[in-house]
Amino acid sequence: MPTEAIEKIHHPPRDEIELSAVLHALSDPVRLKIVSALAAVEAGQEPTCGSFDVPVTKATCTHHFKVLREAGVIHQRQDGTARRNTLRTDDLETRFPGMLATILEAANS
Amino acid sequence: MPTEAIEKIHHPPRDEIELSAVLHALSDPVRLKIVSALAAVEAGQEPTCGSFDVPVTKATCTHHFKVLREAGVIHQRQDGTARRNTLRTDDLETRFPGMLATILEAANS
Repeated sequence: MPTEAIEKIHHPPRDEIELSAVLHALSDPVRLKIVSALAAVEAGQEPTCGSFDVPVTKATCTHHFKVLREAGVIHQRQDGTARRNTLRTDDLETRFPGMLATILEAANS
Repeated sequence: MPTEAIEKIHHPPRDEIELSAVLHALSDPVRLKIVSALAAVEAGQEPTCGSFDVPVTKATCTHHFKVLREAGVIHQRQDGTARRNTLRTDDLETRFPGMLATILEAANS
């Protein structure tokens, strides 16, 4: 039932993004690597889950994307059988000014 | 064997403080509240674990302080039967410039 599956992609609205959930989502090295990679793509790019170079199985990777999405860190859009991902940069910046940038700087230093 | 117990208070050296461990330590609302409270005390103050107003049992609170210490977020000093706590502000600022401040701003906004 792909239609139903598509409808079930839930994203918390901006006002319901919780700090603890975001920090938890970013506390895993693989998820932080995914977020760093998403922050580095050009505007308008929406990489699929499979395009990230991370040392985990596809199932684990899918789980990591789900944790990031449910925390409000990324947005996922169904595109055929793939999911395309973008960082919710504006939402995070509005909720927690400057925070994502300093965490990504720490991750990349 | 209190002497042995004292010697076992381990703190990671500055260079071994891991970003993922710090973010995990801060991803719990109670631990974040403890860190916010520690950030607000006057210089030279070293509150004991029991002085924090958090809605958890003493055992749970002790666990939270241990997670914070092992991540490198706080320093604990044995003082008789109590442990006195300070934030490792300088170490965190050196390792991850600006990060703790933006997280605490997010927590307190």
